Amino acid sequence: MSSVGIRVLGIDPGLTRCGVGVVEGSAGRPMSLVHVGVVRTPADLDVARRLLLLSEGIEEAIATHRPEAVAIERVFAQHNVRTVMGTAQASGVAMAIAARHGLGVHLHTPSEVKAAVTGNGRADKAQVGQMVTRILRLAEAPKPADAADALAIAICHVWRGGAQQRLAAALARSGR
Amino acid sequence: MSSVGIRVLGIDPGLTRCGVGVVEGSAGRPMSLVHVGVVRTPADLDVARRLLLLSEGIEEAIATHRPEAVAIERVFAQHNVRTVMGTAQASGVAMAIAARHGLGVHLHTPSEVKAAVTGNGRADKAQVGQMVTRILRLAEAPKPADAADALAIAICHVWRGGAQQRLAAALARSGR
Repeated sequence: MSSVGIRVLGIDPGLTRCGVGVVEGSAGRPMSLVHVGVVRTPADLDVARRLLLLSEGIEEAIATHRPEAVAIERVFAQHNVRTVMGTAQASGVAMAIAARHGLGVHLHTPSEVKAAVTGNGRADKAQVGQMVTRILRLAEAPKPADAADALAIAICHVWRGGAQQRLAAALARSGR
Repeated sequence: MSSVGIRVLGIDPGLTRCGVGVVEGSAGRPMSLVHVGVVRTPADLDVARRLLLLSEGIEEAIATHRPEAVAIERVFAQHNVRTVMGTAQASGVAMAIAARHGLGVHLHTPSEVKAAVTGNGRADKAQVGQMVTRILRLAEAPKPADAADALAIAICHVWRGGAQQRLAAALARSGR
């Protein structure tokens, strides 16, 4: 673990655009942007090859930025039935890669992510983008929205999960 | 490509039980069983680790049995909403692995598989198991049903797709 906190890779899963964002920080301290990007795959390619391209993009993000944990948006079956299968397949690929790298995988719902970064579980994409920009002290909001969403997921994980996990690990080490 | 036809890995995707079956044959010639099994993952493990175990099982089947193509049951969002996410994630992992090995991935719907194997797109699991047993000249039906289904998917692919693909490839090679 880095001395400045935990480094988290956030993933907003999708076949057409998969947001990938890496932040570093800890609850109560300033958080910093490490990386933000989007893995795009061509819609005219077959799904298997698109998933392969996606897996290569995620592998590259892990190899380059060496996160300590991976946070992924939880996909629900009841929303967006037309795109949900591709999103679920993309999230499955992302989870398997993270597990193969020995990284803990943590799922956060869209409303948990929105509530964590904006204080409102029903915030819209613009509000999420604004708060991500402010939290990471960026000059402007990351584009497209999938990139900002990936950072929001990573920030949510640092605040919701990372701090507790560090505490639990420290307590476990100290034998308490 | 083997001299006795095409070798196809059929996958019936699932998180709890993923059927894995390998057959070899060609349309119009007897088909033979190469391998049948089920990759099981414990329900009390987190989804990411379950997907990792599944990916290891599929990698092993590919490494051991060297299929020339992979056929996977197409998952629909509208069925079994409670389990469809896990099934979609499992199929995504399977597809990405097959693509990484340079194998063509072919999706067949459940009714295409049933129609190919039994002549009836609405056949039940017992009928599918019986026909798989007969087609592969087995002493008894493979158990559990996921294993028989994986073989049915592979058989379907040999009959529906494999023969045409070989012909197309041969024609392409001969420059016609």
